[in-house]
Amino acid sequence: VAQQVVGVGSVALDSIHTPFGVHENLLGGSSVYFSLSARQFANVNLVGVVGEDFPAAHRQMLQTKGIDLKGLRTQAGGKTFRWTGQYEGTMNVAKTLAVELNVLGEFNPVLPEEYRDIGFALLGNCSPKVQWNVLHQLRAPQFVLMDSMNFWIEQSRQDVLDMAKRAGVLCLNYEETLMLAGKKILSRAVDEVLNQGVKTLIVKKAEHGSMVATKEFWFQLPAYPTREVIDPTGAGDSFAGGVLGYLASAGISPAGLRKALIYGTVMGSFAVEGLGTSKLQELQRAQVDARAAELMEMVKL
Amino acid sequence: VAQQVVGVGSVALDSIHTPFGVHENLLGGSSVYFSLSARQFANVNLVGVVGEDFPAAHRQMLQTKGIDLKGLRTQAGGKTFRWTGQYEGTMNVAKTLAVELNVLGEFNPVLPEEYRDIGFALLGNCSPKVQWNVLHQLRAPQFVLMDSMNFWIEQSRQDVLDMAKRAGVLCLNYEETLMLAGKKILSRAVDEVLNQGVKTLIVKKAEHGSMVATKEFWFQLPAYPTREVIDPTGAGDSFAGGVLGYLASAGISPAGLRKALIYGTVMGSFAVEGLGTSKLQELQRAQVDARAAELMEMVKL
Repeated sequence: VAQQVVGVGSVALDSIHTPFGVHENLLGGSSVYFSLSARQFANVNLVGVVGEDFPAAHRQMLQTKGIDLKGLRTQAGGKTFRWTGQYEGTMNVAKTLAVELNVLGEFNPVLPEEYRDIGFALLGNCSPKVQWNVLHQLRAPQFVLMDSMNFWIEQSRQDVLDMAKRAGVLCLNYEETLMLAGKKILSRAVDEVLNQGVKTLIVKKAEHGSMVATKEFWFQLPAYPTREVIDPTGAGDSFAGGVLGYLASAGISPAGLRKALIYGTVMGSFAVEGLGTSKLQELQRAQVDARAAELMEMVKL
Repeated sequence: VAQQVVGVGSVALDSIHTPFGVHENLLGGSSVYFSLSARQFANVNLVGVVGEDFPAAHRQMLQTKGIDLKGLRTQAGGKTFRWTGQYEGTMNVAKTLAVELNVLGEFNPVLPEEYRDIGFALLGNCSPKVQWNVLHQLRAPQFVLMDSMNFWIEQSRQDVLDMAKRAGVLCLNYEETLMLAGKKILSRAVDEVLNQGVKTLIVKKAEHGSMVATKEFWFQLPAYPTREVIDPTGAGDSFAGGVLGYLASAGISPAGLRKALIYGTVMGSFAVEGLGTSKLQELQRAQVDARAAELMEMVKL
């Protein structure tokens, strides 16, 4: 299936504490940010689970944005996953104040039959075992991007690495990359992860940009210098949405991957400029392309 | 005078504590690192002061590398400036353990007559007043790069800004830029410094790269991902040497500035790969160009 992506991950109700105030019950979750970002480039299919408390308005909004929700299951008698997080100072680091896993705790995603030939997929951050079960259901994976986090790397480093080898594309932040590789210098950590057999490594460095590395080439990209950081939640998933969405539309190549990082960066920069998913909801493709052009101008030699 | 640069700054005997050991009495100082870097691209003239204890071997080494020392004054009865610094962990931050200003304390640089028509100059980190006295002596300034540090920004923020306006080019690290602008986000800090009237701002972000900004354009460049960080001392001055040396050889333009940042980055990356100035002393232009090509390949779209 061409120009289709599937995003498997959490759907959440977030409470966000920032220097500008506290905001309760915002729509969030990795598959939601991913989908609202990737929709700029491709047809998006969301796979996740919510409880009976999930507002119908959120579901309608996602559908209005063209996101297919056949894979969004409502668990009878269950409550939606909730995350409460805080950003302070320069808002670079999210501090988790509370987590209620609820229906996410037992989530074992089942892809609708019509999603299984899609080649471009996000395996949102969850246990390597669950990610493995999802990967198994994909019959023709082309670019499967696996997210993870410090919790899983500490718990089961080898499982994360094994899973990343199978998925093909691992997407981590700076600290997670050092932790996974057991190195202090990023370049050495990247070498190590590639030597361990991961084919493509994408490292997210927040305001310091991102990079993609394979055995064949490295590409480093600075961040878009946004002036407005309102809420960093979902920046990484929005980045992944831009990368996967663009690749699904343009095809996989080294040049395509470089360009995909541009679009990932742009989508991440928009995501942080609004509270929750607000900015991504209203965003027009023309704005995306204008900012991509601006970023390309800013990094071209 | 074409293809000439002048580097005004400290000449030091450094003691460096790194995780790999303690090394005493290494040749150092901003004008020394600058000169050993800039010599790859242009004829270099060093202006500084030392005491009678300054080893003749250091002087000879610099001359062997083609660096003109007419501006290096030996103060009778004086002792050379000494700095003792420590790097720990990932070695990103230098902790000053001891400073003996000695002859540097009263240093008021006088440029030899034949240096005064040189257009490309480094005003190494020192008081804005001393920098102003040096700038006054330049009859045809084209690209005068002024360094500074948190000490001067705290002491006399307005003097630093006024001096930067006169010099035209201000070169600071990330934290210094935020401090000078009184902002928390780098992009806003850059806007503010340019709005204050500084024509060209270069921000050094160590392993996160660098940027150059004017009212007309911004250019952002990631760092070269060196695997060997032996001694970060002098990285910023080596960066400045690459920038100024390249511009002196290629002329000033937006495209030239972009390329100059490439060469600055490459020279900074070599500087940290050896103890003190050791790597810069042995470095060949072919190695510089090879690494510049590698970095350009890594950032091209």
